[in-house]
Amino acid sequence: MAVMTTRRAIVRMPIDAEPASTPDDLVVESPLVLGLGGDAIATLMRTPGHDLELAAGWLVVESGVATAHDVLTLRACREDDTDRVHITLRDGVRPPRPRAFVTSAACGVCSADVLDLAPLQTSAPHTAGWTVRRDVLAALPEAMRTHQRAFDRTGGVHAAALADASGRLRFVREDVGRHNAVDKIAGRALLDGLLPATDQLLVVSGRVSFEIVQKAVAAGFAGIVAVSAPSSLAVDLSREYGLLLAGMVRSGRLNLYAGADVVV
Amino acid sequence: MAVMTTRRAIVRMPIDAEPASTPDDLVVESPLVLGLGGDAIATLMRTPGHDLELAAGWLVVESGVATAHDVLTLRACREDDTDRVHITLRDGVRPPRPRAFVTSAACGVCSADVLDLAPLQTSAPHTAGWTVRRDVLAALPEAMRTHQRAFDRTGGVHAAALADASGRLRFVREDVGRHNAVDKIAGRALLDGLLPATDQLLVVSGRVSFEIVQKAVAAGFAGIVAVSAPSSLAVDLSREYGLLLAGMVRSGRLNLYAGADVVV
Repeated sequence: MAVMTTRRAIVRMPIDAEPASTPDDLVVESPLVLGLGGDAIATLMRTPGHDLELAAGWLVVESGVATAHDVLTLRACREDDTDRVHITLRDGVRPPRPRAFVTSAACGVCSADVLDLAPLQTSAPHTAGWTVRRDVLAALPEAMRTHQRAFDRTGGVHAAALADASGRLRFVREDVGRHNAVDKIAGRALLDGLLPATDQLLVVSGRVSFEIVQKAVAAGFAGIVAVSAPSSLAVDLSREYGLLLAGMVRSGRLNLYAGADVVV
Repeated sequence: MAVMTTRRAIVRMPIDAEPASTPDDLVVESPLVLGLGGDAIATLMRTPGHDLELAAGWLVVESGVATAHDVLTLRACREDDTDRVHITLRDGVRPPRPRAFVTSAACGVCSADVLDLAPLQTSAPHTAGWTVRRDVLAALPEAMRTHQRAFDRTGGVHAAALADASGRLRFVREDVGRHNAVDKIAGRALLDGLLPATDQLLVVSGRVSFEIVQKAVAAGFAGIVAVSAPSSLAVDLSREYGLLLAGMVRSGRLNLYAGADVVV
């Protein structure tokens, strides 16, 4: 049985009580490499478990696979510290086509074979001496919410914002893809000459996956404030790069998954 | 000002009243093609608006762009009925690298230049005479919810399930990526010899984007039942392929965005 959740020590900050360090369960996010004929053809960031089904289902859309007979073998293994599924297709079945230069609303993570963090900047994660008050963090999602006009109309759109340590929102963007909303923020910050924005916080309306942290690191943001929960990999990457990561920021309470040292 | 929301006629089904046809606001989802040196380098499924920022932010992660000076020009235009941003980078700036065979937790949509629906099956969307009761539809998300064990622990993981018209859940899968959860369902159905599953419904815990409908069409599912809202493109594609699409299925009420003829 694959491990779908894992535990990290976090700091809970209730609205009317002292912060408390406590273990918290996180969903596991880790790469699964799909191989065909000896080549790595895709890397999926997924929660472990039912990897053969995931590979099979991916083939339904990405290739000519239409029945179980089209797939000769699906073999799961762990090589080079990475989970892999090796696929062999029946002769004549259209393989997944080359998808060079392809991305989507939520792409931006994976190289074909391994996670490549090379583009990530290695500058200090936040300005020296930079701090932020927890009541400021706790108020940011609600402040962003008042600007989510497309969400008001549709109930189905993500948002991201850039905020400073005083709680001021610089700009808010909405998009059907949460990664696009973050890209719009990073792009505006780039065009305004703000990057690396080591004294600014990225606010997001949803969950925090590896890809969101990757974008924040690339843009040099001091941290991320999210309405929902992060994945295991998001927490681990935030800690590695020294980002503040606050999640489950609702009703005045929040969880600090990384960077508690800059919260006063 | 870009149009971020649009309107479609839908059928609202309240818990204790007659269904009513009514206009509903949906978030717009449409492709944006990024071009560099005459080549299409990426297609983003996004909500229109701030496209230049989106392109700039995408470059922050995907290329060597670190300051606004690294980007010589960003030019938005509409060609061949498609929104595009043409990019020119300063000499010496590392361009986005080829990402052949790359995908992510939420990929599966776009060819490099145009939306390619070629892999989609053209079989009938549901078994002849197939119908489903609205109280069955209304109960499916809650039934799935009782099986979301990773969600119970973490609050940060998506789920998908396969269900028949009697409301029976065949299997439930969870994943940090909602597209992975759907792939796990399609894969299990493939391996069980159920595809095309024209008498089965896909249940999803979140929103419905174009990509989710694309996967459902490829697997031959009769329809999609979602806790949250669909995008404009998800609705249009469901109608084009004759899928049932129920969304905002909460507290006994639901919205029918497509396929009202099979709901009794």
